[in-house]
Amino acid sequence: MTSISIIGSGNMATAIGTRAVKHGHTVEFMSRTTAKAQALADGIGNGATVGAYGSRPAGDIVVLAVLYAGAVDVVAHYGDALAGKIVVDITNPFNANGDGLATSPGNSVAQQIAAKAPEGAHVVKAFNTIYGGVLAQDKPMDAFFAADSTEAKARVAAFLESLDMRALDAGDLGMAHALEWAGLLLVGVSRNGAGFETALGAAVL
Amino acid sequence: MTSISIIGSGNMATAIGTRAVKHGHTVEFMSRTTAKAQALADGIGNGATVGAYGSRPAGDIVVLAVLYAGAVDVVAHYGDALAGKIVVDITNPFNANGDGLATSPGNSVAQQIAAKAPEGAHVVKAFNTIYGGVLAQDKPMDAFFAADSTEAKARVAAFLESLDMRALDAGDLGMAHALEWAGLLLVGVSRNGAGFETALGAAVL
Repeated sequence: MTSISIIGSGNMATAIGTRAVKHGHTVEFMSRTTAKAQALADGIGNGATVGAYGSRPAGDIVVLAVLYAGAVDVVAHYGDALAGKIVVDITNPFNANGDGLATSPGNSVAQQIAAKAPEGAHVVKAFNTIYGGVLAQDKPMDAFFAADSTEAKARVAAFLESLDMRALDAGDLGMAHALEWAGLLLVGVSRNGAGFETALGAAVL
Repeated sequence: MTSISIIGSGNMATAIGTRAVKHGHTVEFMSRTTAKAQALADGIGNGATVGAYGSRPAGDIVVLAVLYAGAVDVVAHYGDALAGKIVVDITNPFNANGDGLATSPGNSVAQQIAAKAPEGAHVVKAFNTIYGGVLAQDKPMDAFFAADSTEAKARVAAFLESLDMRALDAGDLGMAHALEWAGLLLVGVSRNGAGFETALGAAVL
């Protein structure tokens, strides 16, 4: 059982929190609007709690479930409160047209966050190739992740596996940009016939 | 049954040709070294033929099974011989370190090829998220593709489905860059535990 904190109160925060408590994890929600975090914790139950936005998260794994444009600012706002934490970036930095990314190689959101995160924090990219609605259904699925820290990788992989997901290590944090493109690929196939009840994966043949 | 031409004589040319003849397609091989194309056609049998490198391909679908660095030059060399053809770009433009791409958004190999291809040729990106060794095993698997032409998409999708692959339309040719990143993602997960007997896909849940 892991203690996780989720910053955010939207679709993905709800989906990850819902799936996490189903599998026995302790979840804390933190939102700029405390009432939203409270409503989310109340709705999910199973001992979900609320933490003050910007204070030190209770969880060792902190899922940053905010929109990409605000992600770096949130990390800057938390500052040293994230020291020693595993910060999970789940964002998809799609450009305004939805036909490309707002990031570039070496400058993925995950890498921007890593540059802003305090000493001892480890950034992991994950969950960005999974729709919230699919995640919440709690079916087995593949989950890609990328990070530099071996220990953080192992912790996040164990967390993903505990959620009945096959954790697929894509490599170091530089590969976060490949995962950001994979997020766009998922939307592409969904829009062009595959539908939105789908998740990217890597089938073993 | 489709008549396809494959330019190249390497691993992917062999795998695509092998799978195509197994499913009843007519295959022509073209290589800068004619002896290599002949050896390949002889090895595959099933009526596989050899065409002169640079002459008009017999197939309506022309698979460009060459390394990315030479792909645009090959298309330029063929020139008007490719008029009206569906040109399939299968390349993975990995950079020298293997940790990123040599291409950029809007400038994928597929788009570079489209810029060089003659009037009436349609470029489709496909097969680049599949290892030759896996393809040759002839198991069912997912196959992403991207193209601008609706008709070319339909033709390539039908070809892929005939090979017992689930054709997943990623969108227009701009999405070829997302597929190039997906090629790198495949290698990333393979190197980091998933192994090389794997193929990217989009599971319907």
